[in-house]
Amino acid sequence: MRYLITICYDGSKYNGFQKQPRVKTIQTELEKALKVINNDSKVNVVGSGRTDSKVHALNQKVHFDLEISIEKEKLKSALNSLLPDDIFVKTVDEKSDDFHARFNVKAKEYVYKINMGSFNPIEKDYVYQYNKKLDIVAIERALKYLEGEHDFKSFTKADDDKETYVRKIIQANLFRDYKNVNQITLSFLGTGFLRYMVRNMVGTLIEIGEGKRKSEDIIEILESKDRRKAGKTASPEGLYLKDVFY
Amino acid sequence: MRYLITICYDGSKYNGFQKQPRVKTIQTELEKALKVINNDSKVNVVGSGRTDSKVHALNQKVHFDLEISIEKEKLKSALNSLLPDDIFVKTVDEKSDDFHARFNVKAKEYVYKINMGSFNPIEKDYVYQYNKKLDIVAIERALKYLEGEHDFKSFTKADDDKETYVRKIIQANLFRDYKNVNQITLSFLGTGFLRYMVRNMVGTLIEIGEGKRKSEDIIEILESKDRRKAGKTASPEGLYLKDVFY
Repeated sequence: MRYLITICYDGSKYNGFQKQPRVKTIQTELEKALKVINNDSKVNVVGSGRTDSKVHALNQKVHFDLEISIEKEKLKSALNSLLPDDIFVKTVDEKSDDFHARFNVKAKEYVYKINMGSFNPIEKDYVYQYNKKLDIVAIERALKYLEGEHDFKSFTKADDDKETYVRKIIQANLFRDYKNVNQITLSFLGTGFLRYMVRNMVGTLIEIGEGKRKSEDIIEILESKDRRKAGKTASPEGLYLKDVFY
Repeated sequence: MRYLITICYDGSKYNGFQKQPRVKTIQTELEKALKVINNDSKVNVVGSGRTDSKVHALNQKVHFDLEISIEKEKLKSALNSLLPDDIFVKTVDEKSDDFHARFNVKAKEYVYKINMGSFNPIEKDYVYQYNKKLDIVAIERALKYLEGEHDFKSFTKADDDKETYVRKIIQANLFRDYKNVNQITLSFLGTGFLRYMVRNMVGTLIEIGEGKRKSEDIIEILESKDRRKAGKTASPEGLYLKDVFY
């Protein structure tokens, strides 16, 4: 039976989603727990995509097949009792064998949180501590240039070899926090994202908010298809995979 | 010179504010950093009061005397470079020798955050994961019975021997989160708080929200002056010392 689970995790203590030797990853933890449930027989999990080291997920989607038959709610509680407490299974669904957590993705939403106020030790692993004011209006204007179908080669890992770098950003917005004027959240809803694409866009947007670049520079950066034209990669702790749509 | 500093800390990795042998405390970290600044001569710090293990502070106040003379902004940056990154000095003020961070307190405000939605691994050390619905209206009504001057013996540590247990709660409120209907924040502004008083009030309020007790039961509990009449001690991770007023 194929299952699709929705998981939420605090990425701060993990080397990202994807399994790697000798380091703590979300995939390793999931496969370890599932092996116990699946009568000690190995289970391979497929996520909707990777998340980088220290990046969080509110609703990451993961599919896998089990040899045993287990009721959805039982699987959920078995997983939650076996997993460490910084990974939580929110829902479990049964899927047909042709469902694929990565290939079937229609859209994804990422959010990135920035604190423009003074350093906050309580949220340091959850909100990027920029700790200075940014020009919000300039960032909002720049976000609009990112919307639409573009070649995002300038915003991905320089050495990432892809067939196409064309992706569509359906919506890119900035939200203020009504309780905390110093916190802003950038959100990106798109059909797909390249490696480091959100963090490279955020790094560039921060430079626009600092006045080092103009909002319109986004057009030129996109056209150049040159990673060196875009800004720095924003640090991971402010980033959340918020939703995956099928 | 006497200094008063405002500090913010993530209490999740600490055994509370107060110095104790062989464990990590906020006071120990502060005194270690101050000793370096004060030409390797020991500095005793006085907080506005203790916070328990795992309890956070948004604006804890601490005073101390230094033998050396150092400019306020310099002291702030020296402390922040020496302290671990889960403790942050927000402000530094100079005070006269008769100022005392504990004895001069006029009022304090505590907040307690509760998540009534599903378990959230990202906020598990910062919001109490109750993970079930509560009767908000019953809690709001009960909060009003806590306001005013009362003998709070029922809400303190059973073996805490005090001259008087009379304290005044100036305001006790419940706030909803507009972005997250499942999160509530209880806030308590009072002239003083006894050991475990906020957590014992919150534990009792949760039992009221569960329907196990009535809002009016607060009157009886206060009158009994008996710790056994009140509810359980709520867990520490949802609690924040928000403000101290002089």
